[in-house]
This record gives sequence, structure tokens and C-alpha cells, in this order.
Amino acid sequence: MSEPVAVDGPVLIVGTGLIGTSIALALRRAGVEVILEDVSAWALQEAVYQGAGAVLVDQQPTLVVVAVPPDAAPGELASACERFPDATVTDTTSVKGGILDTAITAGADPHRLVGGHPMAGRESSGPSAARADLLDDRLWVLTPSGHEGQEHLARVRRLVDTCGASVMEMNPAEHDAAVAVVSHAPQVVASALASVLVDEPAERMQIAGQGLADTTRIAGSDPELWTQILTANAGSVGVVLDSILEQLSKARGSLAVHGSDGGTPHDAAQLTELLQRGRQGRSRLPGKHGTAAVRFSVVPVMVADKPGELARLFVAAGDLEVNLEDVRIEHVLGRPSGLVDLFVRPDLEQVLVEGLTGAGFDVRV
Amino acid sequence: MSEPVAVDGPVLIVGTGLIGTSIALALRRAGVEVILEDVSAWALQEAVYQGAGAVLVDQQPTLVVVAVPPDAAPGELASACERFPDATVTDTTSVKGGILDTAITAGADPHRLVGGHPMAGRESSGPSAARADLLDDRLWVLTPSGHEGQEHLARVRRLVDTCGASVMEMNPAEHDAAVAVVSHAPQVVASALASVLVDEPAERMQIAGQGLADTTRIAGSDPELWTQILTANAGSVGVVLDSILEQLSKARGSLAVHGSDGGTPHDAAQLTELLQRGRQGRSRLPGKHGTAAVRFSVVPVMVADKPGELARLFVAAGDLEVNLEDVRIEHVLGRPSGLVDLFVRPDLEQVLVEGLTGAGFDVRV
Repeated sequence: MSEPVAVDGPVLIVGTGLIGTSIALALRRAGVEVILEDVSAWALQEAVYQGAGAVLVDQQPTLVVVAVPPDAAPGELASACERFPDATVTDTTSVKGGILDTAITAGADPHRLVGGHPMAGRESSGPSAARADLLDDRLWVLTPSGHEGQEHLARVRRLVDTCGASVMEMNPAEHDAAVAVVSHAPQVVASALASVLVDEPAERMQIAGQGLADTTRIAGSDPELWTQILTANAGSVGVVLDSILEQLSKARGSLAVHGSDGGTPHDAAQLTELLQRGRQGRSRLPGKHGTAAVRFSVVPVMVADKPGELARLFVAAGDLEVNLEDVRIEHVLGRPSGLVDLFVRPDLEQVLVEGLTGAGFDVRV
Repeated sequence: MSEPVAVDGPVLIVGTGLIGTSIALALRRAGVEVILEDVSAWALQEAVYQGAGAVLVDQQPTLVVVAVPPDAAPGELASACERFPDATVTDTTSVKGGILDTAITAGADPHRLVGGHPMAGRESSGPSAARADLLDDRLWVLTPSGHEGQEHLARVRRLVDTCGASVMEMNPAEHDAAVAVVSHAPQVVASALASVLVDEPAERMQIAGQGLADTTRIAGSDPELWTQILTANAGSVGVVLDSILEQLSKARGSLAVHGSDGGTPHDAAQLTELLQRGRQGRSRLPGKHGTAAVRFSVVPVMVADKPGELARLFVAAGDLEVNLEDVRIEHVLGRPSGLVDLFVRPDLEQVLVEGLTGAGFDVRV
């Protein structure tokens, strides 16, 4: 790592939501002058109150960061180029190709425009959820077009550094194809799956378990924001949805033939193949800290479902000097206890099992 | 609750996997005589070693529990009826209609046959993962056909009681429709989604986050077992997949039109509607302990990613007498800390936030 040099300010943040305000706070942390702008007086005031910077009056920014929803981004990028003729201009939108193209059509200057997408977020939104360290050690994708000046690209790279994140360069189309696969298409799939639950009898929902809960969790996302994201990345998302639809239709086809004539080995084989491919695809997900997927060992422990019981368990794990990689709590119908799955590195499993058992815990291995 | 009366033994368990052996252990806990049978000598020996019962020689069971994979279930049910002409016969298969019908066609006695499906499982399988309390306070669906004798139904209900579970009666077709929605179709969807990851460039997988991890978790399931389950419930799963395919195709359609002509309000509206329906469907999932879905408050806390830190957090929550309903740990690329989301009843949120903040925790509200 080179010696960190903070980006030169003032930096104007257009849009003081979660991401914009978090970037502002990270810049303030590094001593950079930050100015703020938002169409919502409330959001602007809240960001100022958080110490994210000063309201824009007539300061001249060296760098403008547009952190607004996809529908508003091209206009704000063009407007920033026009209002601040010398400034570098970047954005944080989760779609790049179409947004940057539209921005340029609307008047944004390709020489000063560098697209960006910090890979961070929280379930909560708005300036009051912002944190100075939200971007620390995150990936921040930059999508240089080849038309930007090197000094502008370098400045945006310094912005990323200053915020504590790591630059990952991709071309805009590749970025959009990537987020279509890992984020946008899964959102549509989760929503489609969850949507069929609307008309189901309540009795059926009673027997739903953790699998359905996990599979549909992101279906709880904001419909308006996601409509903007999905339509802005329609081309790439469409391609991925076509692949998923093809796989799903094939699976449905195997079942249809089976249902009508009692089944042939060929149907089952096709279904097994899909399930195997799914398992293979699943294994490609990155593990903790962006490393390749690590298979953690799972140590299940039954604990009483009352205050203090989890504490006792984690104290015991801490005493054993075992770092828990993940924790899953399975709650069980009507019973005053829950099964807690502790995920640990395989080489620590035995230490944990023996230690917890020795400490009187009901370890379920 | 009536005074529990243990089911009259001996009970024969056919199939000493996770479920069969767990039932056996629960019966042994209640002092019931248990005999065991499995096609695998290893699985049988392991179950005996766990104390689940004695190997079948020439004992005459009053009740036979068939706990084998779907493909083997009808044959074992018919065989049990034939070998033990006075015994009540039940099963634990996750599909009911087709399996029971096929069993009867194969010679099972409708008068003595009562279908069952205990709603319990673990990520690990086999007799060594079995637990006497796996079924405690779980729902156990029974699917009386109307042809069974009341004494046989009563005996299976006592089996459920003895194992600590609660009976939920459904007719076989309704059961199969329910599990198709809450379990079988989601499995196919997760597998189809994960299957498209197989051919993606590694770089794309690097930016995958928690959403994709959750949505595809169950794609890691056993392909052989799931092929059997899905083909056995092909009719009901097909109906649900048709609905999901319809929603997904509609979403894909909105994007296609948008992609080619720049979009019209009508496309976005259709997409928003799907996303809204998805959110509505998601909200129907049952909460903890099988109660109606409760919206918990989320209190995010940043903790150092090292042994003992979670312990400190949970001790603090325990000291506040706040019961944690769920915990989610978000690991972050390359950084030595993680964001932990604590889920609590809304009325306890403030107590937790103030208490943890007071105790020096980095609460992110």
C-alpha cells in the first residue's frame, strides 16, 4: 500500500442519503472539506447535523460525487459538469453503462466523468444511517470509459482511497453484467417467489421454515428504488433472467412429464442435473473477507430461549479463543429453546466442541 | 394438555437415518421398546450404538414407522403391512398423496396406514446427527385418508405426543400443495438461480454479497434426495412453478420492452407491482415459534472480528434482560470487524440501543 494521500477538496456530495453522507463522513474523517446538496431540505439538514459537511453556497468543488437514485443520476451528472466546469465528476449508482451514456447525452463531459459504484449498503437508509466507516475495506468499482482524463481518474481513485475502500476497475458493460447476476436478477427471482405467497391459505404458511425465509429475504426491499435499478440495467438483467427462466422451465418440464406418465429415468436425470449445477454454482460464492469460499464447520448447540443464554454461549466460545465466523439461530415452534449453529474454521471445530461440552453446553454433534 | 401416555410398543423404525433414529431416541427417552431395521448395516449399527433400540429379529411391533427416502417409501409401507398383519403403519416422507396411493397399490392396508410428516430436519444427516429432542415442539403433519381405523390414527397421534411434537392434521393433497409452496418450489428456484453462476467469470463472483448468499443457500442441498422429493410431488410443485414462471416472465417482459424502446411508465408500473407483491408475500412468513410474522426491530452494532467480541456483546444484551430473537453477522471484505444485526421485539429496541451505547458499543442506529 502506498502512503495514503487524501483527495484534494472541496468535494461536493450531491444527494445526502446513506451512501452520499457516508462518503462525506469518511472524507471529513480524513480532514477533507466537504460541501453538501440535496433536493430534500430534511436530508440535507440531517447530514449537516451528522457533521458531514457544509451546505453548498458558492464554493467551487474540485470533485463532485453524485449519490442519487438511478432515475435522477444522469441529470445530476450533466448538471454537475455544467455548473462546475473544472470539477471531476463521479457517481455511486449501482448501474453504470446506461446511466453514464444518458448523462453524456444530457451534456455531461466525458473527459471529466468517471463512473463508480461502492459495494456497500445497509438495510436501513437515509443520512441518519450513514457511517464514516461504511466504505472501509469495501470494494468500490470504477468504470473508466477510456474518454476520461487521467487526472480525473486519479482523483476518483484518491477519493476511494480516502474513504478506506479498494478500487476494482471494470468496464461499464462488464460491471452491469456482473451486478445483474449477483444482485439484480436474484432480486427479481426472490420477488417472484415471494409474490406467489400472497394468495396462499394461512395454514400453509404455518409450516414454512428457514429455507423459504432465506430464499425470500431480499423480497422485502424497496419496490420504487428497485424498479429504477432494474429498468436502468434492463438489458443485462434480461439476459440473466432468460438463463434462469430456461433452467426453471426445464425443471418444470421434467416434472410435467413425470406427473403425467409416472416418470422416466430421463426426467429425473435432467432434474438431478439442475440440482447438481445449482450446488456447483452455490459453491462459487465468495467467503468471508472476499476470499474464495471456505467451507466452515458447523457446531450446533441447543440453548434456552431467554435473556443471557446466548451470552453464556459466546463467552464460552470467546474463552476458548475460537472466532465465530457466523451464527445462525433456528427458532422452533412453541419451544423455549433454540438451536444455534456456530460456524468456525474446520481446524477449530474440535476445540469448540470439546470446550463447549466441557462447559456444560448441549452440543449437537 | 392431557396427561401424556406413551405409545404402546414395541415400535419398529424402518430406516435409521436422521429422522428415524431421532424418533427412536425420543421413544427410548419415554421408555418405549424400539426395534430397528435398515438396508445399511452401517446405519443400523450406528443407531444401535446411539442407544436407539435393538436390531429386528422376530419381535412383533404394534407400530411401524417407515423413515426412508421417497422412492423407497411405498415399497417399505406395503412390506410392513404384509410382514406385520396387526401393526399400525406410518411414515415420515415429505410427500404424502402419491406415496400413500402407490403404497396401497403395492399392497399396503388402508385400514392400518396413516401418513405422517414431521416438520424437522438439520443440515447434517444420518443416524449420528440424530437427537432425542429433534421433534420436541415441532409440528408433525398427519394426513388421515378416511379409510384408516380410529385405533390406528389414535396410535400414531400417541407416537407424535410421545416424541414431544404437535399434531397438525391435513388431507394428503393439501399437505402436498403446502410443502410445494413453502419448500419444494423454493428449492427448484434456488437451484435454478445458483445454476447460472456456474459459468460466470470469477471476477463477477467477487462482488457477490449477502443477498445472493441467502437466496441460494438451499441450493447446497443433496441433489439425489431432492430429485426423489420433487418427482414424488411433481403435480403440486409444477403448479407452483407455473405461478412463479408466470411472475418471472412478466418481470422479464417489462424489462424487455424497456430495454428496446427506452421504457414506458406501464413497464415500470408492472415491475413495481411485482416487487410490491413480493414484499407483501414475504411479510406473510411465520415468525418465531410458528406465530404470525412479527416485525422485529434491528439494532446494528459494529464489533471487532476476533474471539470474545461477540461474547462481550451478548453479555451486555443479557445484562439488559433483552432477549435476542435473531442475530445476523455481516462480514466485510478484508476488514477486521463485522456488523452484527440484533433482532429484538420493537418495544425492547430502545432499551437495547441505550444500554449497548452506554456500555461503549458502536451501535449503528
